Amino acid sequence: MELIREGDRVLFLTEKGKRYLVEVVRGKRFHTSEGYIDLEQLIGERFGCKIRSNTGSIWTVFKPTILDEVLHFTRLTQIVYPKDLGYIILIGNVRCGLRVVEAGTGSGALTTILASCVAPEGKVYSYDIEEKYLENARKNLEKLGLIKYVELKHGNIEEGVDEREVDLFILDLPEPWKAVSTAYEALKDSGIFISISPTIEQVVETVEELRLKGFGDVSTVEILLREMRVKKGMTRPVHLMHAHTCYITSARKTVKTDMK
Amino acid sequence: MELIREGDRVLFLTEKGKRYLVEVVRGKRFHTSEGYIDLEQLIGERFGCKIRSNTGSIWTVFKPTILDEVLHFTRLTQIVYPKDLGYIILIGNVRCGLRVVEAGTGSGALTTILASCVAPEGKVYSYDIEEKYLENARKNLEKLGLIKYVELKHGNIEEGVDEREVDLFILDLPEPWKAVSTAYEALKDSGIFISISPTIEQVVETVEELRLKGFGDVSTVEILLREMRVKKGMTRPVHLMHAHTCYITSARKTVKTDMK
Amino acid sequence: MELIREGDRVLFLTEKGKRYLVEVVRGKRFHTSEGYIDLEQLIGERFGCKIRSNTGSIWTVFKPTILDEVLHFTRLTQIVYPKDLGYIILIGNVRCGLRVVEAGTGSGALTTILASCVAPEGKVYSYDIEEKYLENARKNLEKLGLIKYVELKHGNIEEGVDEREVDLFILDLPEPWKAVSTAYEALKDSGIFISISPTIEQVVETVEELRLKGFGDVSTVEILLREMRVKKGMTRPVHLMHAHTCYITSARKTVKTDMK
Amino acid sequence: MELIREGDRVLFLTEKGKRYLVEVVRGKRFHTSEGYIDLEQLIGERFGCKIRSNTGSIWTVFKPTILDEVLHFTRLTQIVYPKDLGYIILIGNVRCGLRVVEAGTGSGALTTILASCVAPEGKVYSYDIEEKYLENARKNLEKLGLIKYVELKHGNIEEGVDEREVDLFILDLPEPWKAVSTAYEALKDSGIFISISPTIEQVVETVEELRLKGFGDVSTVEILLREMRVKKGMTRPVHLMHAHTCYITSARKTVKTDMK
Repeated sequence: MELIREGDRVLFLTEKGKRYLVEVVRGKRFHTSEGYIDLEQLIGERFGCKIRSNTGSIWTVFKPTILDEVLHFTRLTQIVYPKDLGYIILIGNVRCGLRVVEAGTGSGALTTILASCVAPEGKVYSYDIEEKYLENARKNLEKLGLIKYVELKHGNIEEGVDEREVDLFILDLPEPWKAVSTAYEALKDSGIFISISPTIEQVVETVEELRLKGFGDVSTVEILLREMRVKKGMTRPVHLMHAHTCYITSARKTVKTDMK
Repeated sequence: MELIREGDRVLFLTEKGKRYLVEVVRGKRFHTSEGYIDLEQLIGERFGCKIRSNTGSIWTVFKPTILDEVLHFTRLTQIVYPKDLGYIILIGNVRCGLRVVEAGTGSGALTTILASCVAPEGKVYSYDIEEKYLENARKNLEKLGLIKYVELKHGNIEEGVDEREVDLFILDLPEPWKAVSTAYEALKDSGIFISISPTIEQVVETVEELRLKGFGDVSTVEILLREMRVKKGMTRPVHLMHAHTCYITSARKTVKTDMK
Repeated sequence: MELIREGDRVLFLTEKGKRYLVEVVRGKRFHTSEGYIDLEQLIGERFGCKIRSNTGSIWTVFKPTILDEVLHFTRLTQIVYPKDLGYIILIGNVRCGLRVVEAGTGSGALTTILASCVAPEGKVYSYDIEEKYLENARKNLEKLGLIKYVELKHGNIEEGVDEREVDLFILDLPEPWKAVSTAYEALKDSGIFISISPTIEQVVETVEELRLKGFGDVSTVEILLREMRVKKGMTRPVHLMHAHTCYITSARKTVKTDMK
Repeated sequence: MELIREGDRVLFLTEKGKRYLVEVVRGKRFHTSEGYIDLEQLIGERFGCKIRSNTGSIWTVFKPTILDEVLHFTRLTQIVYPKDLGYIILIGNVRCGLRVVEAGTGSGALTTILASCVAPEGKVYSYDIEEKYLENARKNLEKLGLIKYVELKHGNIEEGVDEREVDLFILDLPEPWKAVSTAYEALKDSGIFISISPTIEQVVETVEELRLKGFGDVSTVEILLREMRVKKGMTRPVHLMHAHTCYITSARKTVKTDMK
């Protein structure tokens, strides 16, 4: 059985449903609107245990998943959606050993998820034109021990990338159609292209470009998630819903050969 | 560059949008409603190339992903949805090295996806009470070279499982609430529970049981996927939508300790 | 109590869930895949009663609503969706006494619903460039006794309409933006414009034109309907869903005056 | 052309998209967070005109629809959704001359919409057990000139209603299944029953009761509305969506007769 040690990261789920991701540091006190706790008292406890804040609020202490981490550090920049991330990983065939190019790095949320999936044998090459995003991503990846599976690269992907024969090429850019040629060059035969865009015009432009530049099996979807409030006698879907985050466009590289 | 070899599996995407998953065998002819091709002629070609059937229909030849494989072999039993699989993998923190218990094996679709994600260092323990399902899953897993990451087990999971300290416990059973205690015993502290059910009554029963039996962070969602028809000047969501497949309930194991 | 008389229209709902809309005619036999009944035997029966076909299938006999009628006669041309019709009537402020211009008439489904709502004091002016649609709509409206509330007009609405000071202007045309000026001229101050379009490009074009041509409060929505399968212990949303029929764009006429 | 007169009600749509419903009173100043205007200056202006507040904010002045009124006065009690109201009116076959029983009156939103649709020849009988709701509804209906089409009644509908042979019976109650027998008694043959409930358990209970008590064609749906943000080059669905308001269950009265 694995016990909580100094330096571990823990996820607090409070009585009121708030979530906090914290590193266990001796001598440090963690303050919230539901009171504080001394982090030191967690050392030697079991994950999944409950603790009480100074004001009597009861919190559960979980071992954070990669998704918890990602949802936490994007709270500081922009929101990332599990519904979309999960679908991307699945259709991207992402698993141990994969080589992926991604642009832009942005919050590093997708980079982190990708890194955790391709580890320990694969690699994520993540490009951004903004150094500050790369710096932020680096810090997050280091904290999670994932930096060794990622190469953070400064540059404009529209001008091409160094990588060749990659398995997957993922875009989260304002003008994804401008990077379609770069993706084609970098991908291996039958390799997968994915682009994430909030607006329908971005989708149309990108899909037209994909069809022109030799991609096949082009598809665009939108994923919706409905949360349910489950309680005997009072069960119903939650009132508000994150109804639109992005469209996900995918395609596969085709090659021109003398047709048989 | 990787070329198509004898024994490789290929995905045909035909002119009319049909998909076929085939093993490349010398001397074998593959027949469809859009004509046939001699599989032998693929040998030495590039993945992503186009071929022409005897009736002139043009097909693209892709290298199948795990998802292609799963969608193909479930076509023979029951339907599996990428939108749900992706979300499960993500919230289940599934990645290389994980130890997962699953019941029931069913079509083996989820088993296969899980195996491909936990490989090469993890393991999936998949239970079913029907031997025929286990047999069918075994065949599929062998064909894909994933059987070494899976232990297929015959038995009723409600009576307990052999595994302990597993990271993830996934149920796709008609009465999932009856296996909640088994899941609790098998999971490590803070380990993740996931249950998939089509009806709301199954969800309510399971959620009530989870709350009683020491799970926390209980959540139920439903994932919807909208496909878009993208063409300049004619873009719109697709008319029909797979609107309900299942509810996905997740939770994390909590432990009782003397509260501090 | 109102009993079924000769000449009445009835809705059969069969054991297998099929719906038929039939006029009660003496001496006529009504055949279906679930057997036949002699329509004469309905005369003098109560609406809501059950009858048995010659093969023993039990049918319920309802008094048809306007919506039943519309769903029936559009089955012959194209599909109309209650979810969209209901929303249109509500935001169009449609009620007894209203004056509405509509184009195109098409199946006459919307025309019929509008006529039944504005009767007995209002009027629907329905334009189409295809005489065959007007003829078909006329037959349906006559059968339902609604023709006196409708003026069916042959012509291209882009070239203007005869009506002025109308309350509501509704378009179901392939190029709705071309009729925005006509709508502006015909509408009374603060009058309501509604356009129905399947594609997003139609919406964008129309919305841009509305903003240019003096409309305010422009809004576009899409209505989705989920059917539930309700049975104790087996309740869940229906698997397939009509996910997209059309976008509904609405606006109100503004006027230019010396601003105070 | 109809000009704004003293005593008219107007809808302000401000530059920031806020909506206010106001009666035009001489000598009265209307204050908002975007400045104020003197209502008197509207008199003699055209509906659809624009005015400027003292702070320079430009507002459009529309003639309110019944829906505007309803959305306004429910802002004070609870929210009502056009998507649901429209569907109810359509499947309820609501039009001039209809006789409707409704319970409970609640905010009076549905009562008002129903009254405006059945006027000038029909009637709405609206029951509530809370006198304060009846009082509030009366005030709203009087203001809109619709009170003559409504009879507000104090009482518990589970114990029966005075009306017979009504066309439509609508419930918005916490335990709708308890009023199914009352509805059956009051409805004419083949008459329509509608119930609105937020939770799935209410739906299941009500549907089971409807089937037991002689209703047919029972159906439950949920209506979702997606708003689109439409702007050339930036078009996309709105991020947040009111994903669940209520389930709408409908049925039709059947009668027991000697089956032929």
